[in-house]
Amino acid sequence: MGIAHKMAKKQKEISIAEFFEKNKQILGFDSLTKAMVVSVKEAVDNSLDACEEARILPDILVIVESVGKDEYRIIVEDNGPGIVRKNIPLVFGKLLYGSRFHAIRQSRGQQGIGISAVVLYGQLTTGKPARIISKIREDEVAYEVILTIDTKKNEPKVIKETPIIWDREEGTHVEVTIRGRYIRGKQSILEYLQQTAIVNPHAQITFVDPDGRKIIFKRAADILPQPTREIKPHPYGIELGQLLNMARSTKAYRLTSFLTTEFSRVSPKIAEEICKKAYLYGDMRPKDLTIEEAKRLMESFNKVKLMAPPTDCLSPIGENLIKKGLKNVLGSLKPGFYARPITREPKVYGGNPFIVEAGLVYGGELPKDQPVKILRFANRVPLLYQQGG
Amino acid sequence: MGIAHKMAKKQKEISIAEFFEKNKQILGFDSLTKAMVVSVKEAVDNSLDACEEARILPDILVIVESVGKDEYRIIVEDNGPGIVRKNIPLVFGKLLYGSRFHAIRQSRGQQGIGISAVVLYGQLTTGKPARIISKIREDEVAYEVILTIDTKKNEPKVIKETPIIWDREEGTHVEVTIRGRYIRGKQSILEYLQQTAIVNPHAQITFVDPDGRKIIFKRAADILPQPTREIKPHPYGIELGQLLNMARSTKAYRLTSFLTTEFSRVSPKIAEEICKKAYLYGDMRPKDLTIEEAKRLMESFNKVKLMAPPTDCLSPIGENLIKKGLKNVLGSLKPGFYARPITREPKVYGGNPFIVEAGLVYGGELPKDQPVKILRFANRVPLLYQQGG
Repeated sequence: MGIAHKMAKKQKEISIAEFFEKNKQILGFDSLTKAMVVSVKEAVDNSLDACEEARILPDILVIVESVGKDEYRIIVEDNGPGIVRKNIPLVFGKLLYGSRFHAIRQSRGQQGIGISAVVLYGQLTTGKPARIISKIREDEVAYEVILTIDTKKNEPKVIKETPIIWDREEGTHVEVTIRGRYIRGKQSILEYLQQTAIVNPHAQITFVDPDGRKIIFKRAADILPQPTREIKPHPYGIELGQLLNMARSTKAYRLTSFLTTEFSRVSPKIAEEICKKAYLYGDMRPKDLTIEEAKRLMESFNKVKLMAPPTDCLSPIGENLIKKGLKNVLGSLKPGFYARPITREPKVYGGNPFIVEAGLVYGGELPKDQPVKILRFANRVPLLYQQGG
Repeated sequence: MGIAHKMAKKQKEISIAEFFEKNKQILGFDSLTKAMVVSVKEAVDNSLDACEEARILPDILVIVESVGKDEYRIIVEDNGPGIVRKNIPLVFGKLLYGSRFHAIRQSRGQQGIGISAVVLYGQLTTGKPARIISKIREDEVAYEVILTIDTKKNEPKVIKETPIIWDREEGTHVEVTIRGRYIRGKQSILEYLQQTAIVNPHAQITFVDPDGRKIIFKRAADILPQPTREIKPHPYGIELGQLLNMARSTKAYRLTSFLTTEFSRVSPKIAEEICKKAYLYGDMRPKDLTIEEAKRLMESFNKVKLMAPPTDCLSPIGENLIKKGLKNVLGSLKPGFYARPITREPKVYGGNPFIVEAGLVYGGELPKDQPVKILRFANRVPLLYQQGG
């Protein structure tokens, strides 16, 4: 057998779970301290997203318990809508499974890889399965599921599923044991939760640290963030390949209707104008679009005046609540001044709209001899590891 | 329908190709200039690895052509063993497919995600398919394959496959068109190839830049790197979950034989000692190992004296060839001194052995007014974006 055939015999498919098991740094598990924050973050992101989607004021309990040298049990429990029984194993035991991946709208976790990656990291480093309890309103009982991930297949392996009586009407409880290191101060779980509380003044977050100390970030406002709506991509900044993909899979028969139905802010009149500037017939079939024609189309996007993208896919915090969030969490430091928070005009990048917001406190009992502290967030998620200086 | 059921309807599987399409920065495509270097790198890594495996002195041609604003055609052609016909679409058109992922041995690309990610990035940004020609020695003809990736399924979509007459006896030619920006100087394709030539003195690399200029990095030595052998993991630094996985899937019936057959450097005598120190019966079934027992086993690994891991899975460059490589590529700067290169003792991290090597040149016509330049490499691959200062 020749060498090429010998090599061919070794070529085979790799499961995504095996891939991430070997490349856990890609998902943020590159140090014992960071693994702790990432694990809490993924679970809390899910809780906040689920509560908002169900229009529930979030009440989240985070417990970190030391269970051995460099080994911690992380528990996150919420009052969210719960997960239907048959999906529990998939949500926690399968990488690349999720509900928010394909939608253009603001959410925290959206890659379908967050919480299942934590389960994977836990079983890799401690050998211990994850324990989930979830109850939805319609069911009489909650379901307790003990599971691991079959990394060779990227499928959940349910060790035990038990219907149990739970005192909550609805909610989800996740319990994962991981190898990690608990720290205080900078880039710690506490700092992450504190910052999360600032930008989510509608959430109540209770944290019990490994020493059993309880810290409560009280709800600062009984107002849920405005519900977000899924939108179509905006023409600005879209990639050529993405445009071609959309043109091939659209149900529209004419180029103009393709533009008006698949994009934000393209009216029939603007669609005609775009086609004209691209030297294309408005009633050609989108599927027939060649690469060269698609390029001309993209160039025309920039030659017409398009309205800024709709912002109802976004949920800015707003002046009032930024101030409330800052006051609630930093109030004990008695800052001298709260500058008026700013919410900028929406912009668009890669077809996705975004809004920049900023708040500022200074003076008072804030330490004078330390450099300015910048807290950065994206989609209401603190960027602990990408902070400005 | 309750909210939990509504949310469940939206939960679905995400293909790995869709995931990386949305998260291309994870794979290194986070800027137009970096995308160029990464694309060349992935193809060249594959060529070098394939040649070494087939014991062929690599002769690699890299061509970068400008084909439009911010659009480049990248061609990499080698004299390697070629790829068997039926595997061509999978190697280039399916993410997470490869031959080196599961093996512990030194290789450059090993994640099964390199070259197919380039194809994905190319089609996303330019809409253009990849073109591959490959011929293996046993076949009369070469096969030309034009393909894209079906991102929804993560499967290759072959547009055209043609048997063609090729003047090479064996080899592979890859052609991908991507959106990028060509730069000279730091972190450029030229710098990447130059550094690659330094640590691969057995390779001849020819580069044709977008202006048609041809630069040849001549082969400095007709000696192929020592062939690498796949090894078992070394007990030091293995993760608990990995140990449990291995214990569950082993064919060994007894704990001692599990230790001697699945690990490097564990003799029957040492295996007995490990079991004893872990208070475990040497003839217990590995499958029955509990988490607590596995932990004791891991602690015992560190209580016995184990030989350093075998190094035949590694292929150090060696004193002589480091010097030759440096001379060959930097010789025109006439450095005054070549310090004697160093090859350190092998160490082990996470069960994987590694060796540190270093070479040093100074004086001569090297610029005196510039800071010291450190070139870092891993597995003979230049770390252009993680250089020391």
